[in-house]
Amino acid sequence: MMKSKGKLTLIGCGPGAADLLTMRAVSRIRSSDIVLYDRLVSQEVLELIPENIERAYVGKKPGDGGVQQGELNQLIQRSVLKGLKVSRLKSGDPMIFGRAAEEIAAASIVGAEVEIVPGVTAALAAASESVITVTERAELQSFIVTTGRAADADTSPDWAKIVRPGVCVAFYMGVAQAWKIQSNLMIAGVPADAPADWIENAGTDKMRNVKTVLGRLAHDTTEQKVQNPAILLIRYPYSLQNEARQKASMVSL
Amino acid sequence: MMKSKGKLTLIGCGPGAADLLTMRAVSRIRSSDIVLYDRLVSQEVLELIPENIERAYVGKKPGDGGVQQGELNQLIQRSVLKGLKVSRLKSGDPMIFGRAAEEIAAASIVGAEVEIVPGVTAALAAASESVITVTERAELQSFIVTTGRAADADTSPDWAKIVRPGVCVAFYMGVAQAWKIQSNLMIAGVPADAPADWIENAGTDKMRNVKTVLGRLAHDTTEQKVQNPAILLIRYPYSLQNEARQKASMVSL
Repeated sequence: MMKSKGKLTLIGCGPGAADLLTMRAVSRIRSSDIVLYDRLVSQEVLELIPENIERAYVGKKPGDGGVQQGELNQLIQRSVLKGLKVSRLKSGDPMIFGRAAEEIAAASIVGAEVEIVPGVTAALAAASESVITVTERAELQSFIVTTGRAADADTSPDWAKIVRPGVCVAFYMGVAQAWKIQSNLMIAGVPADAPADWIENAGTDKMRNVKTVLGRLAHDTTEQKVQNPAILLIRYPYSLQNEARQKASMVSL
Repeated sequence: MMKSKGKLTLIGCGPGAADLLTMRAVSRIRSSDIVLYDRLVSQEVLELIPENIERAYVGKKPGDGGVQQGELNQLIQRSVLKGLKVSRLKSGDPMIFGRAAEEIAAASIVGAEVEIVPGVTAALAAASESVITVTERAELQSFIVTTGRAADADTSPDWAKIVRPGVCVAFYMGVAQAWKIQSNLMIAGVPADAPADWIENAGTDKMRNVKTVLGRLAHDTTEQKVQNPAILLIRYPYSLQNEARQKASMVSL
């Protein structure tokens, strides 16, 4: 098999603002032979690519006839086999919902070097901008990021079982699932007054924070016309569990 | 009450390498009046602070007589009340295990502006450097970061209940808990052959990846002399659950 002297670098570009790229990300972009990007990478970030470096749009939308994953993998392989340094821009962090595994495999199988440059993932940009601490001593011990979709459309979503006391959960791109998220979490026992925050357009100057609670999530999502890209942060601190227990015991008196 | 014209900026400094700071982080450091840091912030990062900017060590170790949180909060308040721009450096991302809430409250209560600059959290640097995708289409749907400690020393840890099929979990600073993590997860039903990776010194040139599986975690942690700072990534892909089911049904034949 042909062996490549090329290199694939997956570069986390953060949530959108150009100054939320790491210095390493900028340095790797500048030393590329070709830069591949999709529609999730912001215009501001694309402006960091020097004029003299080749760039290719590899995005896809359902039904738009864009580049499919198989073609993209072949483009990566052809490029690294020519010995090129290929930079693949990913919004956020490449290892979180970035479908990195296939592209890494495509490059590795032809012997190319692979480097991953981590980035600021959207959920943490959302937390920073809305000043919400996703872990908190004695209150929030674990932080979960998830997609809000069930692995299998017929089953109840697995994430409902993992939202327990002490957990903050971030849903990516969950706007269409607001009612499903609310109902599944409430069935799983998360209190209706658990804080729920939408952060739209995190990491850009169009950021908006819509504050509500789990029991009003679907209603307020519609009423406030929340739109993707948006991150939903739901917090279930230990103290809320204790309050719920106290209420329950008062009712039973 | 006195009102502040100062500003507190919590700055995520990433896992250690200076070039994993964002450009925004560097820019905020350079425009500070005073920079506060602790022992988790690397030397490389400290070298980015211009000579003419005041700096103060506010770290604490158990029993070393370092600055306590109460004193630190007072230092922040005194500084912002003087109208200073105070930058507080945090390793990783400020909102993840950064104990940010108390410092934000200290500044807010005296009327100071607060800004949070997100950073590359250690778990994602660890995933990048070891080329481990923490989410994967149809395999890993949720990613959890946790401390490996129970909220209450007497109870079984809550994280054991949230590691389910489709989950990748990152434990921060869990070296001393290796046996507890292994035993609790196995009791909770995570298969012994679930991949377990230690990443020591993620984001620095001393990075080391120790690859093992859950069933050998405690043994290999000791044998390989894994030391903090280290991130433990444990993956429980859906396919592993299916394999475990098949084995179980073969045994019952």
